[in-house]
Amino acid sequence: MNRKFIAYVLSLVTLLEGFMFLVVSLIAAGYKEKAFYAYFVMGIISVVIGYIGYKRKPANMNFYAKEGFLAVSLSWIVISLIGALPLVLTGEVLNYTDAMFEIVSGFTTTGSSILTNVEALSHASLFWRSFTHFFGGMGVLVIVLAFIPSISQSGMYIMKAESPGPTVGKFVSKVSTTARILYLIYTGMTVLQFVVLMCLECNWFEAINIAMATAGTGGFAIYNTSLTNMTPSVQVVTAVFMLLFGINFNVYYFILIKKAKEAFKCEEMRIYLGIVLIATAVITLNIMSMYESTSYSLRMAFFNVASIITTTGFGTVDFNNWPALSKTILLVLMFIGACAGSTGGGIKVSRIAIMFKDCANSIRKLAHPRVVKPVRFEGKPVEEETVHSIRSYISFYCFILIASVILISIDNFDFVTNFSSVAATFNNIGPGLGLVGPAGNFSQFSYFSKIVLIFDMLAGRLELIPMLVLFSKSTYRNS
Amino acid sequence: MNRKFIAYVLSLVTLLEGFMFLVVSLIAAGYKEKAFYAYFVMGIISVVIGYIGYKRKPANMNFYAKEGFLAVSLSWIVISLIGALPLVLTGEVLNYTDAMFEIVSGFTTTGSSILTNVEALSHASLFWRSFTHFFGGMGVLVIVLAFIPSISQSGMYIMKAESPGPTVGKFVSKVSTTARILYLIYTGMTVLQFVVLMCLECNWFEAINIAMATAGTGGFAIYNTSLTNMTPSVQVVTAVFMLLFGINFNVYYFILIKKAKEAFKCEEMRIYLGIVLIATAVITLNIMSMYESTSYSLRMAFFNVASIITTTGFGTVDFNNWPALSKTILLVLMFIGACAGSTGGGIKVSRIAIMFKDCANSIRKLAHPRVVKPVRFEGKPVEEETVHSIRSYISFYCFILIASVILISIDNFDFVTNFSSVAATFNNIGPGLGLVGPAGNFSQFSYFSKIVLIFDMLAGRLELIPMLVLFSKSTYRNS
Repeated sequence: MNRKFIAYVLSLVTLLEGFMFLVVSLIAAGYKEKAFYAYFVMGIISVVIGYIGYKRKPANMNFYAKEGFLAVSLSWIVISLIGALPLVLTGEVLNYTDAMFEIVSGFTTTGSSILTNVEALSHASLFWRSFTHFFGGMGVLVIVLAFIPSISQSGMYIMKAESPGPTVGKFVSKVSTTARILYLIYTGMTVLQFVVLMCLECNWFEAINIAMATAGTGGFAIYNTSLTNMTPSVQVVTAVFMLLFGINFNVYYFILIKKAKEAFKCEEMRIYLGIVLIATAVITLNIMSMYESTSYSLRMAFFNVASIITTTGFGTVDFNNWPALSKTILLVLMFIGACAGSTGGGIKVSRIAIMFKDCANSIRKLAHPRVVKPVRFEGKPVEEETVHSIRSYISFYCFILIASVILISIDNFDFVTNFSSVAATFNNIGPGLGLVGPAGNFSQFSYFSKIVLIFDMLAGRLELIPMLVLFSKSTYRNS
Repeated sequence: MNRKFIAYVLSLVTLLEGFMFLVVSLIAAGYKEKAFYAYFVMGIISVVIGYIGYKRKPANMNFYAKEGFLAVSLSWIVISLIGALPLVLTGEVLNYTDAMFEIVSGFTTTGSSILTNVEALSHASLFWRSFTHFFGGMGVLVIVLAFIPSISQSGMYIMKAESPGPTVGKFVSKVSTTARILYLIYTGMTVLQFVVLMCLECNWFEAINIAMATAGTGGFAIYNTSLTNMTPSVQVVTAVFMLLFGINFNVYYFILIKKAKEAFKCEEMRIYLGIVLIATAVITLNIMSMYESTSYSLRMAFFNVASIITTTGFGTVDFNNWPALSKTILLVLMFIGACAGSTGGGIKVSRIAIMFKDCANSIRKLAHPRVVKPVRFEGKPVEEETVHSIRSYISFYCFILIASVILISIDNFDFVTNFSSVAATFNNIGPGLGLVGPAGNFSQFSYFSKIVLIFDMLAGRLELIPMLVLFSKSTYRNS
């Protein structure tokens, strides 16, 4: 195993986090907050430690899939372990497990919170939470890769382990260039949303936090009521941007290189927007009788469908009070999730679509055993290996889901709370139903349950395999 | 398509049901009940129609998988459509959809009921419900096959479509002989349970109904309180027999041919009993504080674990009041189900075990890509095709489960009721949680939801594929 390479990656991640801390300390300085010291000191320490490691670049930069997965899972654990410290140092979160939950929720772009009153946080810490969403959304290693031009082609293993979806799009042959293009598009769109929000009724702090939390499809808000008290236009703009960040970034790359026609052909995007349309229509009809105006019902339905399917988790209404059909649809959207290659979580539209086609195919095969047609997606046949990996993914997914629900049910909350807590964290959404609905939070769980949910958030964000490789005995056995 | 063959099979099934009706009419005659007329007339008509079809045996008895699946799904629908009639004719069930729900629940050995007061039924109809469990458990076509010695090897397609589990054991080369051995073992065990129950405090009617409902892992009871008011010894004996009927019948065949050593090696059985042991232990500890005596807690835990994992669904206590951990474990057991090749439903222990091993294997493969070892189960490598079919099964299973939950949530009951209703019918268990818990029933659902649940019961009992083939356009297209 190329341990030196893994250590090198961890140093780079620490260095990145150090710079992030320093940016937060600037915010704290601007608002003249005491939190400045915690973020500044942590920033300096992280930069120094990270830099020392960075200077010890290993001679051998080649590695296999195993090391790639390990580098990714360890990076996410290290960045969260360090990232939780300032929250404890500032005294804003009283214990380390809670701080860890909050920051893992940030980096994994879940947006579930253990805080009962986020408005009591300093501006610095509010910004820090949103900042973790921004880097967690596109990936902390994707940005690291962007700065290692010398990374070998094995860099794809890392890209693959961190990017959501069954396959990973490679825009250009060089991994570091692909990573840069991704961050360029991503940052551009975030800035665009920031500007639009500034033009509406938001102040700059609201705008930057909402933009970063939308970009990463995270969902941490700076108000206890999330986006409930924002104006309708801010809500609609945010809903649209949530949907945009939930689309496969290949689409934007095609637009960027002026192949708009290719872009709009994207089958995954069409299915995804189709689901949004149908879900919004059904929920609007279902909740219409609850509210005075149809336009309000439509806005609430659209916002919450967008918020849930993209796994962002911003709230504008307590959908716990909606009828069973609407709640069930939202729960199903939690599992479907956004498109592959986006910043959203969940199982991903492409996985579900390929699975569905594979099922239809196997029925067809029973009726006509001699006519063998491969599953087609995005206009071309899907490789057997991809179909295979999706099927395994679903099995893994079910096992982790069930085990987690059993483990947290020890706390003896109701089934809806338990099931939707796991659904909301594992799919990186944020709010669930019952006690963890839009009006609730995760503070009531025991530390044991919080640790289970921390694992679920990481496993969900990294799409299971890296976390499973980390905890598998066979990884550490030489063959 | 060999339509004549399918028509022939349907006639045989009608003939079988005619004989079943006549047996029920004897019970009615014995108790001097008016229900006699309904069962007797239906019996005569069914026998006559069935016999006419039986005499028109097609010259060509060869068929493909497609016809096998269609014959099975159509047989189950026809037997249920006819079987529901007497309940309406006797006036005991007021409308046909409800009667259909009840009889599909019987044949599929689900045991969910739309009746609020089963004690108001005639002895004849109580016996009819249990009788459907008995034949539905081992399979209505398995007994038909037993009486067609001339059936070609294609008969295996039917056997495969009706028998639970990823693969089907063939004791001997001849399909009809295998079918006879299966029914021999099955009837022998049912008689044994009947005799034991008679030796305890049961009267003959209680004993025969409990024995038949246990054998098919059905769960229809003749009292509103199910087995709650039975003596502890009757409860324990029934629990043991439920577990026995949930074991792969290969085990009994091995014992029959005096290969007991082979029998006890059965990996699926060991895992199954292991799960029962652990679940019983955890639930006992979890509910101990609720009851006065530990022995009562242990008995309740053991009985309900056995009842749920075997998908029987007999009740002795309202587990809706148990703590979340116990309820969650029961809900998970609903999905696991019994062993392949038993009369139980659910996903089956072997499927779960192979899936689990396949997952572990794929993680191992990531770490050591050059060491490729196939998944092993029951001491031998599992064929890639079997693993493949299990993975598709899980996908199908998830799709049907989710679609059903969405559809019945239109009735606007709570999520636990909706989810567990589908879980309880799709896995052929009987009671769920919430409003359909051991103390509730399915009468409150709309007709639309009842039809969805009828589909789920049939799809669950026939393990999806036959029902999907029936409703797939490609089945009726000539290629």
